[in-house]
Amino acid sequence: MATAQGRPACVISLLTDYGLADGFVGALHSVLRRRAPEVPIVDLTHAIAPQDVRAGGLALRRAAPYLAPGVVVAVVDPGVGTSRRGIAVATPEITFVGPDNGLLVPAVEELGGAETAVELEDRGYWLQARGATFAGRDIFAPAAAALATGKDLTDLGPPVERASLARLPAPVVRPQHDGSVEAEVTWVDRYGNAQLAAGPRDLHPAALADSTLMVTRVNAPPRSSGAALNPPAGPWSARVVKAFADLSPGQLGLVVDSYGYLALCMYGANAATQLALQEQDVLLVERA
Amino acid sequence: MATAQGRPACVISLLTDYGLADGFVGALHSVLRRRAPEVPIVDLTHAIAPQDVRAGGLALRRAAPYLAPGVVVAVVDPGVGTSRRGIAVATPEITFVGPDNGLLVPAVEELGGAETAVELEDRGYWLQARGATFAGRDIFAPAAAALATGKDLTDLGPPVERASLARLPAPVVRPQHDGSVEAEVTWVDRYGNAQLAAGPRDLHPAALADSTLMVTRVNAPPRSSGAALNPPAGPWSARVVKAFADLSPGQLGLVVDSYGYLALCMYGANAATQLALQEQDVLLVERA
Amino acid sequence: MATAQGRPACVISLLTDYGLADGFVGALHSVLRRRAPEVPIVDLTHAIAPQDVRAGGLALRRAAPYLAPGVVVAVVDPGVGTSRRGIAVATPEITFVGPDNGLLVPAVEELGGAETAVELEDRGYWLQARGATFAGRDIFAPAAAALATGKDLTDLGPPVERASLARLPAPVVRPQHDGSVEAEVTWVDRYGNAQLAAGPRDLHPAALADSTLMVTRVNAPPRSSGAALNPPAGPWSARVVKAFADLSPGQLGLVVDSYGYLALCMYGANAATQLALQEQDVLLVERA
Repeated sequence: MATAQGRPACVISLLTDYGLADGFVGALHSVLRRRAPEVPIVDLTHAIAPQDVRAGGLALRRAAPYLAPGVVVAVVDPGVGTSRRGIAVATPEITFVGPDNGLLVPAVEELGGAETAVELEDRGYWLQARGATFAGRDIFAPAAAALATGKDLTDLGPPVERASLARLPAPVVRPQHDGSVEAEVTWVDRYGNAQLAAGPRDLHPAALADSTLMVTRVNAPPRSSGAALNPPAGPWSARVVKAFADLSPGQLGLVVDSYGYLALCMYGANAATQLALQEQDVLLVERA
Repeated sequence: MATAQGRPACVISLLTDYGLADGFVGALHSVLRRRAPEVPIVDLTHAIAPQDVRAGGLALRRAAPYLAPGVVVAVVDPGVGTSRRGIAVATPEITFVGPDNGLLVPAVEELGGAETAVELEDRGYWLQARGATFAGRDIFAPAAAALATGKDLTDLGPPVERASLARLPAPVVRPQHDGSVEAEVTWVDRYGNAQLAAGPRDLHPAALADSTLMVTRVNAPPRSSGAALNPPAGPWSARVVKAFADLSPGQLGLVVDSYGYLALCMYGANAATQLALQEQDVLLVERA
Repeated sequence: MATAQGRPACVISLLTDYGLADGFVGALHSVLRRRAPEVPIVDLTHAIAPQDVRAGGLALRRAAPYLAPGVVVAVVDPGVGTSRRGIAVATPEITFVGPDNGLLVPAVEELGGAETAVELEDRGYWLQARGATFAGRDIFAPAAAALATGKDLTDLGPPVERASLARLPAPVVRPQHDGSVEAEVTWVDRYGNAQLAAGPRDLHPAALADSTLMVTRVNAPPRSSGAALNPPAGPWSARVVKAFADLSPGQLGLVVDSYGYLALCMYGANAATQLALQEQDVLLVERA
């Protein structure tokens, strides 16, 4: 967004843990429509679990390769109102705006890393509001509107050292010497597909040519109340397939999913429910 | 969309079973904003039950008469990645894009039937992606963007025989000789109103002038776990009304709903919950 | 919207109890895209509890100070299809369209009160539809589109006396002689924050300088089935903080929230769940 000339149409994309029940998302849109009335808005998702910075960072990383050029506002922000910084981080095509708590970094790195970053310190851009706990509405959306309407990143505040940006631990991916891999469940989607942190190249080169792989749960974080306290560990055999419908109903499958990661799936059933899989479970995937 | 001249503003409308939790809808919007940045988008709904092609087809048929002119992308797609075809089907005002599994046909017929149809075979329009299980993002949204920005239907692939399009069984509507009607519950909405597949003309002409009709459940599909296994069959008396508020609280009513179908309803209560009604139940509506 | 000249970009903002499952919101958008294709739309929220006019009115009042200029369509409408009036009410920057059942008044007053109001009686603007129970699609959205594209308020129907507009009881706020305040819970948000009807000025001027205040539940409406029938009444001590993260995990806090009201909160926990708080509970907040 350095120059107005010849630049592609700019879009503001949003990802938050606000949910759609409360009007928080509507407030973001209202501020953006006031301050950047011509700029289209894309809602990536607002259903990140409340305060789950890890899940938000992974969802934003998945969205990154497909983002429309412009500005992303991402907010999962348990530290709102404290001294945690608000930042804007520029990559070549997209500028990310949000809290400096690790949320933005996975997507920034997916898109080649930060070119420049600033702290959102210039209060001249902030919205004057009645309370201090809604940085999305009062700081981040106004910053995005300023960037989307031609302001320079450096207008918004002083530079930030890229090395100083907060980071979260990367999801577990541990390729083993025997060609198997231990990998964390990064995402359980609406259909019950369980995405792993591992891609096909983390497995033995011949493994995906096998018809069947073995899957074992080797570590599970504490279950929320109501869930099975000691979920079964497997092993389960998973058929290697290219499409869900290549499975028989209820059969466990393993696909390279639409984001390029390994994922467990079923056809006509919910794999995560059937196997009591949760995000952050660690699974071992090995040849049979 | 044959000519740019004098054509009405084009809109892309979306209906899927993606839910709003996962970022799938955000990915569709991102692709559309990249490829058709000027075209407005309408989200019809993304809450079709996962893989429920029947419910998606009925929801799209309900939406059809009110659609803004342009392109509809509809995706409920258990066969994604297999040899099931991706298609685009043109009616006079709207072109529908989605899987050839019966999802599109009810709406196409509501709008007068297909003028032309093609298979989305030209990979030049597809998005190059990292996996093959997200046709909405990689095939259907790009096709819609191409159509909305002036490409011709026949650019996207070879023609498809209209008679070859996949179809689902129509919802049950069986007018009886005595002026009663057996009809399937096609939809239970958020308020607990249960829409039937029958309209007023499927009943005896004098029936809706009666103050009360009788309703009996004559068939029920298997209940999901948690629901009453043997729901009561009635008969219930339903007061014929024009507005929900014409009922006393908790009284069962029958209206011609806003889509022109018969529907069971209550005022200040949820009729579907009170009567344990589910979609695909078959009810007999008769004069008292 | 009196003059086209120099007027700010017009936006249509929507707030309803339609939910996102059923296609009702999609129908509103479709009608607006047909009749006002250039006007941006903001979805404030569609998750007001079904038929809860009180909650809708409070949500709209919270949204009011941030609304983009233009037209608001608000629909929570148990009396749809009866003789309750459909109205449009103009304030200086925003015109509100919806049912005359008390839903619009709190926001209208937040923005300085009604300048003029009309009843939406001119059927020439209505959508010809197949049934009479969807005023949002058939009456309110078309009225909003007419206003947003330059029609005058008085084109839509005859004037309405401002004093005749329906009103709901205001939420309970009872400042006490000793500087304490009794106040209703107006809103429980996704994070479990419980907003009160009281602001900082309803308390003793020195109270918010205290480190701790006492909170007691003094009245509770009937609990829905499943909830604790006799929720504990406290008293609880609440630490006065400026940010959620100033609390220890699980500690109860009291903030001036982002809308300028007092709110109970926890850090890393859900205050409403922990204290069994529900909307319309009345709490006493006093100095320790």
